This record gives sequence, C-alpha cells and structure tokens, in this order.
Amino acid sequence: MPLSMYQASIPVFIRMMGNLSAILDKAAAYAEAKKIDPSVLINARLAPDMRPLSFQVQTASDMAKGCAARLAGIDAPSFPDTESTFPQLQERIAKTIAFLRTVTAEQVDGSEERDVVLKLRGQETRFKGQPYLLTFVLPNFYFHLTTAYAILRHNGLDIGKADFTGGRG
Amino acid sequence: MPLSMYQASIPVFIRMMGNLSAILDKAAAYAEAKKIDPSVLINARLAPDMRPLSFQVQTASDMAKGCAARLAGIDAPSFPDTESTFPQLQERIAKTIAFLRTVTAEQVDGSEERDVVLKLRGQETRFKGQPYLLTFVLPNFYFHLTTAYAILRHNGLDIGKADFTGGRG
Repeated sequence: MPLSMYQASIPVFIRMMGNLSAILDKAAAYAEAKKIDPSVLINARLAPDMRPLSFQVQTASDMAKGCAARLAGIDAPSFPDTESTFPQLQERIAKTIAFLRTVTAEQVDGSEERDVVLKLRGQETRFKGQPYLLTFVLPNFYFHLTTAYAILRHNGLDIGKADFTGGRG
Repeated sequence: MPLSMYQASIPVFIRMMGNLSAILDKAAAYAEAKKIDPSVLINARLAPDMRPLSFQVQTASDMAKGCAARLAGIDAPSFPDTESTFPQLQERIAKTIAFLRTVTAEQVDGSEERDVVLKLRGQETRFKGQPYLLTFVLPNFYFHLTTAYAILRHNGLDIGKADFTGGRG
C-alpha cells in the first residue's frame, strides 16, 4: 500500500497516544507506591522555563487532533487544558484517540496540497498539508511526547524506550 | 506531489540533523562563554541510567543513515561512535547529512513493502519498509533528537522549541 497522508498521521497518533497512556498509568502507580503526591509529577519540569508534564500531554493531544481535523477539513473537538490529575490526563488522551478514530483515510488522503492556516505565537502561518504534517506536526508531536517521557524518567519512573515506541526498542 | 517514502524520510532527516547541528553550535558557544568544560555537557544525562548527549547525537545519526540505506537497498557508512567533542559531533552530523544527500527519491520511493531486517537487543526483527519508517525510525529519531535538546535545556542552554523544529515554533 503506498504511503498516504492518512497512514503517516492518524494511526501514528493513535499508537503513540496509546503508548503515552500506558506510561502515565505507570507514573500513577509509581506515585501511589512511593507515596508521591501525583501533582508533583504532573507539575514537574526539566527546566524552570520549560512546561510541565500536563502541558506536554495536552500539547501532544492538540497536535494530533488539530492535524487530523485540518487535513480532513473538519473541526476538532476543543478541550480546555484544565487537566490536573492522572485520571483527567487519561480522559484527555481517551477523548483524543476517540476523535482520531472517527477520522477516515478517505477524509485525509489527498490532503498534500490542502491549505492549512494556524496561529503560531499570534502570527498567522500558512502551510500546505504535506509540509504541515512533516515539518510542523510530527516534530512537535514527538517533541512533546518525548519531553513527557523525559520528565517522568528524570523523576525516577522506571520506564525504557520500548515504553515510548510501543515495544520495538 | 503525493506523499512518498522519500519525502517522509530523507528531507526530514536532513532538516532535523541541521537543526541539531545549530543547537550544538549554541551549546559549544555556551560552554565557552560560561567556562564550562564541553565534556560536562557532552556527558550530561537526564537520569543516571539514561544515555548522555553524545549517544543521543550518534543514535539520531544511526537512525537517519540506517533508514536511508535500508529503504534505498544500499549500504550505510559506518561511524565508530567515538565522538567526544563538539567538533567531532559536528563532523558526525556533517558526514550523516552528506550521505543522506547522496540518496535519491528514485532509490527510496516504492520501498513501502521492502523487507527490512535489523538486530534489536540481539534479536532479529523484520519489518516492511513503511512500518519500519513510521513505527520504528521516526519515533526513535525524534526521541533521540528531543532527548539531546532536553539534556542541553536542563543544563541551562538558552534555546527554545523553534531551535528544535527549525523556526516554526
């Protein structure tokens, strides 16, 4: 099957958000076992002027649902970024995956040249669908997923790269 | 232009390795300005059982050149992972990009079903070209790039996400 805009985006998002969910389950269990207030992990950062774990999860969700909607030419559900517990972050991931599952290959395929307009730091930025996916969404999506992983790893959670990639090292 | 195996891999690798090179230039300048021994940054880790900055750069390079070679059906250059200074890491990146530039769309396109065999933790693992790129290479490539960024950010380097993505926030 030739590589398509759908294959390079939606199943990747679903898979990686599922891996993130499993990592957050391990983080919640770790907090409970070690008597760590979960908010310590959820608010943890790698540098004082970097964003905390909750933001990394919310932004990975935004990248995935925003991309799916823009490539499909439909509206994405809006989530208010108020999650402050592990169950709430899991619900955010579940809602994101549920939305992604409604988006079909028929809607996304052929979106290489689709006009995408978004606001970045208050400035309107225009992309075509293919560079939007390859040079904006995927680097940002993986950046926030990896930062979430790194925050938890730095805070002692016993996970490995296979947790991140989903079982293939 | 329809999304192709080439477009989803080689130009992405070249672009992101270039961004990494610019980040390492800033790290070297930061070390000099702050009188930090560069090896402190090059050996820095986010957790005692995570790998240091040098490994992150080497592995990002390996992911990119290995993927390019396997999808194109050619041999990748072998680099011995001995880099221990910023100039050596920059040379590694430059050699990686130089190799990637020799790989053509004609060689890589149509590799969706190509058999890829690699050793992961001593075990032979088989992929088809498309899942190899989407579920193995890209998650790993971005994982190591982001971890390199996070190590430097955690150690005080003044960079932002635009340095990572190459100017689009």
